[in-house]
Amino acid sequence: MPGSEALLVDLYELTMADAYRRQGLAERPATFSLFVRELPPGRSCLVAAGIDDVLDWLERLSFGPEEIAGLERLGLLSRELLELLAGLRFTGTVRAVPEGTIVFPNEPILEVDAPILQAQLAETYLLNQITLQTALATTAARCREAAAGRAVVDFALRRTPGTDAGMKLARVAGLVGLAGTSNVAGALRYGLPASGTMAHSFVQAFANETDAFRAYAALFGPRTVLLVDTYDTRQGVEHAITVAREARARGVELAGIRIDSGDLGALARAAREALDAAGFPNLQIVVSGGLDEHAIARLVASGAPIDAFGVGASLALPREAPSLDTAYKLVEIDGRPVRKTSPGKESWPGRKQVWRARDWSEDVLALASEPPPGAGHVPLLVEVMRDGRRTEAGRRTLAEARAHFASQWAELPAALRRLDGAGKHPVRISPALAAAARALAAARDA
Amino acid sequence: MPGSEALLVDLYELTMADAYRRQGLAERPATFSLFVRELPPGRSCLVAAGIDDVLDWLERLSFGPEEIAGLERLGLLSRELLELLAGLRFTGTVRAVPEGTIVFPNEPILEVDAPILQAQLAETYLLNQITLQTALATTAARCREAAAGRAVVDFALRRTPGTDAGMKLARVAGLVGLAGTSNVAGALRYGLPASGTMAHSFVQAFANETDAFRAYAALFGPRTVLLVDTYDTRQGVEHAITVAREARARGVELAGIRIDSGDLGALARAAREALDAAGFPNLQIVVSGGLDEHAIARLVASGAPIDAFGVGASLALPREAPSLDTAYKLVEIDGRPVRKTSPGKESWPGRKQVWRARDWSEDVLALASEPPPGAGHVPLLVEVMRDGRRTEAGRRTLAEARAHFASQWAELPAALRRLDGAGKHPVRISPALAAAARALAAARDA
Repeated sequence: MPGSEALLVDLYELTMADAYRRQGLAERPATFSLFVRELPPGRSCLVAAGIDDVLDWLERLSFGPEEIAGLERLGLLSRELLELLAGLRFTGTVRAVPEGTIVFPNEPILEVDAPILQAQLAETYLLNQITLQTALATTAARCREAAAGRAVVDFALRRTPGTDAGMKLARVAGLVGLAGTSNVAGALRYGLPASGTMAHSFVQAFANETDAFRAYAALFGPRTVLLVDTYDTRQGVEHAITVAREARARGVELAGIRIDSGDLGALARAAREALDAAGFPNLQIVVSGGLDEHAIARLVASGAPIDAFGVGASLALPREAPSLDTAYKLVEIDGRPVRKTSPGKESWPGRKQVWRARDWSEDVLALASEPPPGAGHVPLLVEVMRDGRRTEAGRRTLAEARAHFASQWAELPAALRRLDGAGKHPVRISPALAAAARALAAARDA
Repeated sequence: MPGSEALLVDLYELTMADAYRRQGLAERPATFSLFVRELPPGRSCLVAAGIDDVLDWLERLSFGPEEIAGLERLGLLSRELLELLAGLRFTGTVRAVPEGTIVFPNEPILEVDAPILQAQLAETYLLNQITLQTALATTAARCREAAAGRAVVDFALRRTPGTDAGMKLARVAGLVGLAGTSNVAGALRYGLPASGTMAHSFVQAFANETDAFRAYAALFGPRTVLLVDTYDTRQGVEHAITVAREARARGVELAGIRIDSGDLGALARAAREALDAAGFPNLQIVVSGGLDEHAIARLVASGAPIDAFGVGASLALPREAPSLDTAYKLVEIDGRPVRKTSPGKESWPGRKQVWRARDWSEDVLALASEPPPGAGHVPLLVEVMRDGRRTEAGRRTLAEARAHFASQWAELPAALRRLDGAGKHPVRISPALAAAARALAAARDA
């Protein structure tokens, strides 16, 4: 790993590590559970993502001489801890849902079983990445759902909060099956189609719109999408038709036009009519500009003749749910379940399993030690890392994760795919888990 | 630069580059202007940031063999463009406001004067970083303002959308003078104090709270801050007092306690009384948990005895303004001003300067070629890069930027420091700029 990635930790992970070491507790077996406390507004479910990057980080976790020197400069950590960190590798087990799995509040997306020092050290990075990628994947899946079969393209790199978010958005765009991304680095890294048209500045750089269109079409021929709204969209469509005719005279059919402002539905209708009348029924219409899943759904419902949606800011930072309320909580230590009881922040104790009824009638949150709640239930958490190394299940490709997501989404009850969050999925607490929680509460009150 | 950073571009930057090359237009002199269109809710001003990273990217921009091979795999760009990119360096000029400068809508944060191919290629990265860091710096400055002299610490790394956002938040925390960051990598990289206490999991890992506190205090002595709300906050404070007494018996005074849940104001009052009564008036009270600038301001206004605020999610993703509506627009080409006229997306034409009245009575947005609007006005945009190399003004350290921010903020009219966005700063359009815009509109309509 680029060494400094190991330093992507909150300071207290290191001071706590030092205290565990000092007390001889560093090796105590612990389990931490990472889950979402509550669904954000408008969401009925979440798409779990980020697990592959988390396994990568754990597998490569190490502090080189430069990182140790940096930690020494903090002037806070003991020599003994620095020596321990210099030789540290992650040796634990991770149980996680496969990426692309649909999850609900309080269900672990992953659990880490490891010596407490190691499991604690992973907290910051795991929360950072699972929160980011699960939030992004959920929004991308909603946009795809809203588009009802039309293409959705990630145009968000300029709007993502930083470059890591831009790359991870391209990754989850691949996971949930968007049609492409404008992010060149992301397309190359994650094997997604790279997609793009032209900017208004390109049109402005020429003496007139038609010349700009000609210059682009001359080079990109059948991959040409002309941006028609720099000056006046209806005139822009006429200019596009002129250039499409010239191309056809050379035996080339252009790909389409893009509208990036104004009343997208009305402009798309007018453009479709003009294009059809001019003999270009196959020229596609791409729209963009301030779109989110709700705007896409309205355009689709209105019957607007739109073939593809380019989505920017709202894929990166959906207004109603810019983030997720995730938690990474100690649930077991030395085989003893534990539970935090701060007001509003209670968590379920113990190592867990999530069982999903095959007919989607319920999920059951249970202790890992319990038998299946019924024959029709399948377990969601699988071992993806053992003794610090990925298992077979932990080496799934992005293409495999995409197939898993697609099959999950296809069988998801329609109510849970709604964009208004009205659908609710029952997550039942198993009797044994409820009893464990009660026992801890009673012990605390006693 | 890590080579792949050059690929952090939208595909259309590259296809447009290819078309410019093909038309022999790649070297045409162009100016792009990066600005914020509108203030988000609650904001009366913005703190410009991200310029240093942008200059870094421009200075190091290059496509190595691996990146060229990647671009070739797209199957879209011409051999000639790939050869051009293989030898490309940024050779342009950047004029920018110094980092930490207060800016308003439509005022350029920076302008790029460069051959159009280069200036266009920079669009995605420049928007990504200036948007991110200006949004983060503005929110951090508001939190600091709300705390009215009490310490504010960045606890957000686990909540930032990705690791780049986490690092850049630590950077702007340094820029606006927060007291520290929990992000170890960020603290080391940007020279900020690293800060942290302990997690609830630490307390839970011991047989009881008092033992957990003892273990931590034994190691960190006067830097110990005890987290008192894992089970019951009032009992937690009593346990903290027990351990503080034991430390005092060894000649050590602990640093403080932290409360992370519940009614923070009421709990802080009760804790202060208990600590004072027990003879620990210097033990500090840190609070955290769901805080934003408004909650901080309410706690401060209520007179709650709080010494420091740890802020997480809302520093990273403030609910009312998760992002900024930035634009990077072509404003001049071949010395000819241009202006986009799409509805709702108009921009001001021409290379610009922003003049600020020393008494903060107004800003004036003007053409760069205009003389000062008056003796009492100072120009904000300065040349930070020339011919692709930083100027002296482009090599300011983070410490210098922090001093600049502090002096700007100190002289900022109180109305503009309000948290409700009620203050408005007049930004006047110079007569020459207004005339240039009118002339373009007339030419378009003719």
